[in-house]
Order: sequence, then C-alpha cells, then structure tokens
Amino acid sequence: MGLTYQMKMKIPFDMADMNGHIKLPDVILLSLQVSGMQSIELGVSDKTILEDYNLVWIITDYDIEVVRLPRFAEEITIETEALSYNRLFCYRRFTIYDEAGQELIHMMATFVLMDRDSRKVHAVEPEIVAPYQSDFDKKLIRGPKYESLEEPVSKDYHVRFYDLDMNGHVNNSKYLDWIFEVMGADFLTQYIPKKINLKYVKEVRPGGVITSAVERTGLESKHEITSDGATNAQAIITWQEMKKD
Amino acid sequence: MGLTYQMKMKIPFDMADMNGHIKLPDVILLSLQVSGMQSIELGVSDKTILEDYNLVWIITDYDIEVVRLPRFAEEITIETEALSYNRLFCYRRFTIYDEAGQELIHMMATFVLMDRDSRKVHAVEPEIVAPYQSDFDKKLIRGPKYESLEEPVSKDYHVRFYDLDMNGHVNNSKYLDWIFEVMGADFLTQYIPKKINLKYVKEVRPGGVITSAVERTGLESKHEITSDGATNAQAIITWQEMKKD
Repeated sequence: MGLTYQMKMKIPFDMADMNGHIKLPDVILLSLQVSGMQSIELGVSDKTILEDYNLVWIITDYDIEVVRLPRFAEEITIETEALSYNRLFCYRRFTIYDEAGQELIHMMATFVLMDRDSRKVHAVEPEIVAPYQSDFDKKLIRGPKYESLEEPVSKDYHVRFYDLDMNGHVNNSKYLDWIFEVMGADFLTQYIPKKINLKYVKEVRPGGVITSAVERTGLESKHEITSDGATNAQAIITWQEMKKD
Repeated sequence: MGLTYQMKMKIPFDMADMNGHIKLPDVILLSLQVSGMQSIELGVSDKTILEDYNLVWIITDYDIEVVRLPRFAEEITIETEALSYNRLFCYRRFTIYDEAGQELIHMMATFVLMDRDSRKVHAVEPEIVAPYQSDFDKKLIRGPKYESLEEPVSKDYHVRFYDLDMNGHVNNSKYLDWIFEVMGADFLTQYIPKKINLKYVKEVRPGGVITSAVERTGLESKHEITSDGATNAQAIITWQEMKKD
C-alpha cells in the first residue's frame, strides 16, 4: 500500500453530458490531474522525471468499475494511491467518492515508464517510485483476453490538432471518446458503463484517421481502435441501464 | 462598471496543445466557469434563474484579443466583470493575467437571456442583473461586418454526443474547435490568433454534420460554420506568428 492523495471538486457544467452525468473521458483527465498533483507534491513531477531521466509515464491498461456516474454540480472526492510495482509495471488506484463517502467509480490503471526518444518501455526506476511508498510485488495484474471482432460496426474519426498533447500524442482520454461515440446517441442516453477494460496497444499517430469498431451482444460490447492497418486499442465494456431520477 | 470576480489556476497538462499553449476552447470553458462562480456567489446561479424564470444565458458574440497564450503549468488569473447592459444585451469582460499581472488575453462577451422552452431571446430582467452592479447603458456594442465567403476551403465534422451539454446544445467552445481545426496542423504550429471576432447566429442541432469553411488572405481568415443549409456561426481571425521560446 502506498501514500494516498485526494482532491475535492464540483462537477462543472461543461463536464456534464446530455444525461447530466460527468463525461467519462473527463473522469480520466481529472484522475490524471490528481496523480500528477501527487507526483508534484512528492518531488517526482512529470517535468522532473523528463528532465532528469528523459522518461515519461504512459498508461497501458484501465480497469474501471462504475457504480453510478457523478452528476453536474455534485461534489466528489478523487483519491489515488500507487499500490504496487514490479520490474516494468506500476499499478495505481483511483477511487471517486460522493459527498457521503460512497464509492462511485473504482479505476485501476497500469503505468509504465517510456523513454522519450526511443519510445521504448523502460524498467521502473526505484528512485522514481520510492516517494510513493508503494510495495514491490512481482505479481502481474492481467487484463481480460481481448478477442478480435467478427462482424463489427465502425466509424472513422479524424485525429484533430486539439486531440494532441504537448508531446504530440493523442491523450488517453480521447480513445474513450471514440469508443463511446460509435455506440450512438440513442444508446448513450439509455445505458452507462458498468465495467470497462481498456488496453492501449500502439500509439495513434497525429494527423490521420482512426476507425472505431464495435460489436455488441446485449449488454456487452467489444471495441477496437485501428489506424494504418494496426490495432491501437482494445476494450470490453459491460453496460447497465441508466437509473432515471 | 460592475463587481469583479477572480480565479487563479495553473494550466494543467491536458489543456496544453502541441505548442505547449492553452487550447483556446479551454479559455472559453474556463472563463464561463469563472462567470458561473460569480453568479453562484451573487445568488443568481444558472440553476436559480432556470428554476425561477425558466431562462438560460446564451452568448451571441465574442471579441477576443490575444497578447500571448498562457503555457502549460503557468499560473494565471482569470478576472471577469459584468460591464453594462441594455434592454436585450449584457456585456461582460474576461481578462487573463500572468503571474506578474500582465494582460495575456482580453475577451468581451455578449450575453442574452433565452427562454428555455420557446428558445427565444428574453428581455433582460432587472432583478437578475442587479446583483452584478453593472450599469444600464443604451449603447449597443456592434461586432464587425461578416461578409460571406467567396471561395472557401471546408471540412465536415460530425456533431458528437460529447459535444452536447446537459441541455442538448453544442457548447460555445466547440465552434472554436471547428474553426481552428480547418486551418490544419501546419498552420496551427506556426501561428496563433491575435484577434478573434465570433458571432453565433443559430444553434447547431445535435446529431448532424457541420461544415467549417475558411477563406484566408495572409494573416486574416474568415470563417463560417454551416449546417442544414443555414449559417450557425461566423468569425474573423487575425493571426500572429508564434514567438519561439
């Protein structure tokens, strides 16, 4: 177990979707702001590790469980904790609580360090992870097996200038945008995710077009983001009916 | 002159573009968060005026002047002030300062009240604007004359589910996204706006496709957002070369 770090906030209007729920890509953006703030506080900010080691943190996997989605103007607490690490992977928890302390969203994220120039994964540097006080644990956390899609429905999306971050990468949260968008507005006003497994396979290149493919069977959907003939990301989502209130 | 309200913040990583500058649509989102916070403090929040009057604030015009764009991790102060109002229009200033108090962005926004059901403009309600202590002033502030485009270059964009807010409207900031996107990444990594005039003519409907058209002559570009044969927004932008640093 590592040090925890919390941020309290109210969901602003522009983060709410048509249902009045927070947009899930914003959950990812906010969570990364919180872990970023923890890193700054512990003296191992993204800026520091880039300058001192030429390394950047990237995320390879998400495992997200949604009890319910926070609503516009609701006060939430986002808590994060670096749980454990092994030779290559660091596992971090994000938990979103409502005002009464009830868990709304539970998210596990797998982080790896990447060399900024070679774009290759770099072994965990003990000095970088020590400040978080998480445990070394050889055990690997494995995601589900992502099967390829048989008869998918798909849509193409341009990678836009504003989809790119300072490093010229498509932000992690953007993939969720493409994954949800292909479900269509009708579906998205009736169902919200219950569980999301998402695996980043290969970076999307700036400037091109990606294809967001989906195959849905009842309340389960399987997703693939592809571009230039390669798979960029895969996801499996279990959906739940939206509670009207 | 009215009451002023300020918020200090640091530009988070996910608001920075490839140049390390804040994304301009995020400037709009943040500014509206600040005026929204002022309204809450003064007891005339968006929620209150919707419940008590069935009215919502909408923005019809922006006049934005950019000295330079705030950068990733830079601390800025966003200040807003409701300047004056007349029978239909309320004029509000947003100013973004750097840490030394230098003005980085100056933005004038024209607000009107709209009836939520009829979607028609509603005369300014004195009780709604009184708390801001701005002056009544008959004088209308007029934007530039927007001429129609002769030989535009254009791109089509789908209106996405996450482009819509809780009221099913496309967020104001989204139009700037479409307006910039059509300039292309090459241009956007060399130039930043110096002055933007933007006029919202007609709401974009959810679910469809919009066309973002542009005609550029040197450092001036004229823009039109259209859908279903109607003009939704028009803009004129003067650009400046990016200072390398």
